Amino acid sequence: MAAPRPGSQRRIDVLAKLRSEVDLWVASADAEGGAYLVPLSFYWDDSALTIATPRASRTAVNLIRAGWARVALGPTRDVVIIEGPVEAIPIGTDAALEDAHARAVGFDPRELTDEYVYLRITPHEIQAWREANELAGRQMMHRGEWLA
Amino acid sequence: MAAPRPGSQRRIDVLAKLRSEVDLWVASADAEGGAYLVPLSFYWDDSALTIATPRASRTAVNLIRAGWARVALGPTRDVVIIEGPVEAIPIGTDAALEDAHARAVGFDPRELTDEYVYLRITPHEIQAWREANELAGRQMMHRGEWLA
Repeated sequence: MAAPRPGSQRRIDVLAKLRSEVDLWVASADAEGGAYLVPLSFYWDDSALTIATPRASRTAVNLIRAGWARVALGPTRDVVIIEGPVEAIPIGTDAALEDAHARAVGFDPRELTDEYVYLRITPHEIQAWREANELAGRQMMHRGEWLA
Repeated sequence: MAAPRPGSQRRIDVLAKLRSEVDLWVASADAEGGAYLVPLSFYWDDSALTIATPRASRTAVNLIRAGWARVALGPTRDVVIIEGPVEAIPIGTDAALEDAHARAVGFDPRELTDEYVYLRITPHEIQAWREANELAGRQMMHRGEWLA
């Protein structure tokens, strides 16, 4: 097992992962406490993650209801977990964002039959760790502020 | 993008992944609809997945409350998503299971200070897909029965 990374290196690695990865895992729940989990593609604009999913999907309904998301970038031994508020942006609201999202994820929700919605998640809490020896110090951001 | 796999091949691949992988993503939710997501290691005994986590952790509390889990094996472009009922097994109940779990995951909850609980998840629903062209036919198991 490699030595634990200092916080400064983990922050660099978190940002590199946000810029290079295409997919993440999105957890959500309904009002009755039923959990849901799917992989989705995302666009990172250096301040928030934008995903798009059908407005009628469980993920969209759950996240808009909760107003808060918990998402994870993998793999499981190089984890970044992000929580933050969710802003729902209807199709046709922000052409620049929609263009950038389509380039990043490889599909364009505006061209699809289903009505999609963009969900913009702004990181307020970030954790990052690889192996068990990095669980200490895994909190990288708290209430929107970087800790390292 | 590769051609979509037939269901028979996907079933072989699902079982191979359950036998070879060590970690999965566990989604859960509290009674108020707050979603949670963590990676955990698991042991597959050819009929169920067993994870272990502190009894006081959000994942254990949420899954025992719900009695149902949704977990995912990755990566995001080779997904297996499993849902099923959760059985909570206290430490010291089933030595054979505890030994096998410790061998599979590389740590032994019986040696830790925190009180752990084993959570045994029996697959009732399984989905498997790689790229978008495999979304059709992704349902591999329904109500505990293989479809392919």
